[in-house]
Amino acid sequence: MSGALRVGVAGLGTVGAGVLRLLDTHGAMIAARAGRPVVVAAVSARDRNKKRPVDLSGYRWFDDPIAMAADPEIDAVLELIGGCEGVAKDVAEAAIAAGRHVVTANKALLAVHGAGLARAAESAGVTLAYEAAVAGGIPIIKTLREGLAANSFSRVYGILNGTCNYILTSMRDTGRDFAEVLEEAQRLGYAEADPSFDVDGVDAAHKLAILTALAFGCEVDFDGVYIEGIREISALDIAYADELGYRIKLLGIATQGEDGVEQRVYPCMVPQGTPIAHVDGVFNAVVAEGDFVGRVLVEGQGAGAGPTASAAVADLIDIARGIALPTFAIPAAELRRRPALAAERHVGSQYIRLMVRDRPGVIADVSAALRDCDISVEALLQRGRSPDEAVPVVITTHETTSAAMDEALSRIAGLKAVLEPPRRIRIEAL
Amino acid sequence: MSGALRVGVAGLGTVGAGVLRLLDTHGAMIAARAGRPVVVAAVSARDRNKKRPVDLSGYRWFDDPIAMAADPEIDAVLELIGGCEGVAKDVAEAAIAAGRHVVTANKALLAVHGAGLARAAESAGVTLAYEAAVAGGIPIIKTLREGLAANSFSRVYGILNGTCNYILTSMRDTGRDFAEVLEEAQRLGYAEADPSFDVDGVDAAHKLAILTALAFGCEVDFDGVYIEGIREISALDIAYADELGYRIKLLGIATQGEDGVEQRVYPCMVPQGTPIAHVDGVFNAVVAEGDFVGRVLVEGQGAGAGPTASAAVADLIDIARGIALPTFAIPAAELRRRPALAAERHVGSQYIRLMVRDRPGVIADVSAALRDCDISVEALLQRGRSPDEAVPVVITTHETTSAAMDEALSRIAGLKAVLEPPRRIRIEAL
Repeated sequence: MSGALRVGVAGLGTVGAGVLRLLDTHGAMIAARAGRPVVVAAVSARDRNKKRPVDLSGYRWFDDPIAMAADPEIDAVLELIGGCEGVAKDVAEAAIAAGRHVVTANKALLAVHGAGLARAAESAGVTLAYEAAVAGGIPIIKTLREGLAANSFSRVYGILNGTCNYILTSMRDTGRDFAEVLEEAQRLGYAEADPSFDVDGVDAAHKLAILTALAFGCEVDFDGVYIEGIREISALDIAYADELGYRIKLLGIATQGEDGVEQRVYPCMVPQGTPIAHVDGVFNAVVAEGDFVGRVLVEGQGAGAGPTASAAVADLIDIARGIALPTFAIPAAELRRRPALAAERHVGSQYIRLMVRDRPGVIADVSAALRDCDISVEALLQRGRSPDEAVPVVITTHETTSAAMDEALSRIAGLKAVLEPPRRIRIEAL
Repeated sequence: MSGALRVGVAGLGTVGAGVLRLLDTHGAMIAARAGRPVVVAAVSARDRNKKRPVDLSGYRWFDDPIAMAADPEIDAVLELIGGCEGVAKDVAEAAIAAGRHVVTANKALLAVHGAGLARAAESAGVTLAYEAAVAGGIPIIKTLREGLAANSFSRVYGILNGTCNYILTSMRDTGRDFAEVLEEAQRLGYAEADPSFDVDGVDAAHKLAILTALAFGCEVDFDGVYIEGIREISALDIAYADELGYRIKLLGIATQGEDGVEQRVYPCMVPQGTPIAHVDGVFNAVVAEGDFVGRVLVEGQGAGAGPTASAAVADLIDIARGIALPTFAIPAAELRRRPALAAERHVGSQYIRLMVRDRPGVIADVSAALRDCDISVEALLQRGRSPDEAVPVVITTHETTSAAMDEALSRIAGLKAVLEPPRRIRIEAL
């Protein structure tokens, strides 16, 4: 254990530069904590001459990250290339095949190929670590795999995408609509030029699939995640949520039942009294519900060079310390394939908002549609009066299945006095 | 690694019973996660015949926990006796001397004898683990030692005592005073018959001293902790805090400066917009501020059989998995002795409340006393008017040293129109 852990860094974007800076800043401290130095022995990126905030002259350079992964002077590869196919996957596989440990921030890779990579890493006797892949700086992988390892989990959920949380928080703070706030987020660097991975919920779903596997001891099942993004959330709905005692958050929620696992990513209303309702801006948070520990929440920054580097280097320190655990906490062969429970079967309260022509009988028609689908109304608010003009009607329901609500909404959408497609937001009991 | 980890449990109170129940419930799951079974091989307590919620007939019994600690059929001792001297310390030392790993929930023992025990464990090549000693079910030890190991910490703080947090939350919710709420907490089992360890801040100080050592890489220095409890907090001050945009919380706060370490435990006002302000009831929370990760908060239940057992068994699983780290993250010989910075030197805003006789000139006299001590007033509120009767005056100040405020308060207390000892609560910038 006395020799240095020699790391090859593949990918030198924001996070890669952050890792180099961190290891440069904290070399002595990390050597004390890890019991031996953690050093960058080589780097690789697409373009050697790109302008970067770090000086690469002291590092061995590889044009080909796959060659770096197999180099005899590398003990661990830090994969920061991204994407679930192509070079990132090739690098991870090559490293494992060559007997190198792999640390990655790549949620897509783990979500799509996690089961296979876990088996490969286990056969090769190397570690596949991915703290940086989920919720940035929050050490949620370690918390689930080790800190709370004595618990059976019933539910794990969280705010897993900082871009969406920034947008929703900013919409609430300023009363502006989605498109305008998205544009601002793009200007500030909180959202990508093509924001769909974030705002359509795909990124959160990748992370949720990983957490689900880890918490419930099952194979990663990204295809089993029901996904809705936040594009349809309007300033009006955010204002109503406030009034009703909720906040709207994009949550990833995984629950374990007798007959399978339910994974959902969607914007939902969470009661203002819950800790997760107060997680704002670019912060992420994950809540784990364990049978002995109860509810544990971990909150921190979900992205950015510093937090992500913090997580990636923590994995490297673990490897340097000789901590070697199975990828998803239990041996890959013991991970179960569990049926994905259909999101339509999910039971919960819901919020719906309609724009209706203000005339007698509309409420009766809407109420009848809900009744015919066995949905019980908890509250109904019609705001303002402007005869024969469009007014919003807001309804919250008691518990119902998503399938019943789908049917009711399709009937309601067909009513003549209903002027726009109905908006529906689930109310989450947390 | 294939044989079972054989645990001897010393102390069979609430937590001990919880551990037996947990290992009984989750035996197979834990064996999968740990790579081998974790089994209770023996138990010891003061009174074998005491009525307990668990059946002890299946376990080997020791009257003498020290004999159990040295028994060749024990790999690890779980010390749940409590207290910083006497049997608890003897058991821990005997176990280490016999080459057994030690897991403990004993914050007093670690806070007072942590440095010596860490050295002894290291010499013996055994693990001394204490996740259950700080903040119950919250895996804060693992988070600081491993999850955030890539960071240098500037500050660590938290709500470390559930009894105090329950009392302060309940005082706020009901408007009742300390004594009444304490009595209720005792009735409900949230406070001990002799509550002084909790309400006078000693328990929180034990925990803070441990966190300080771990976060800053220094020897545990319990004597260096400045401590104030919550007995003096009144319903009136809680109401004023609300009005001023704060919550009153008993915090333990450790900061690292160039010239030493500052450790403080006291009730203080925290801005309502901070996450820690919303940690209520028996919940605990710890915030770590790292230079790369930023602010990370972990929240969960700080006491109780389930959460504490969760933490203790997580330590046992680590040991079974072969994870062996120095007690305070770095080798005991490298832990520095750092000067304790005097609390009087601490600089911050403060809140003071006076009961004064409502007559002309009082405010002028009070203001003059503050000015003479170089303290700048941020806001001053006098509520109600009842000439020549007692009325409250509330003042918040800009940043000042605690020493300056001590001097100002002693002058103010001497004013004839000031009818009760002034109350002072620090305002914490979080």
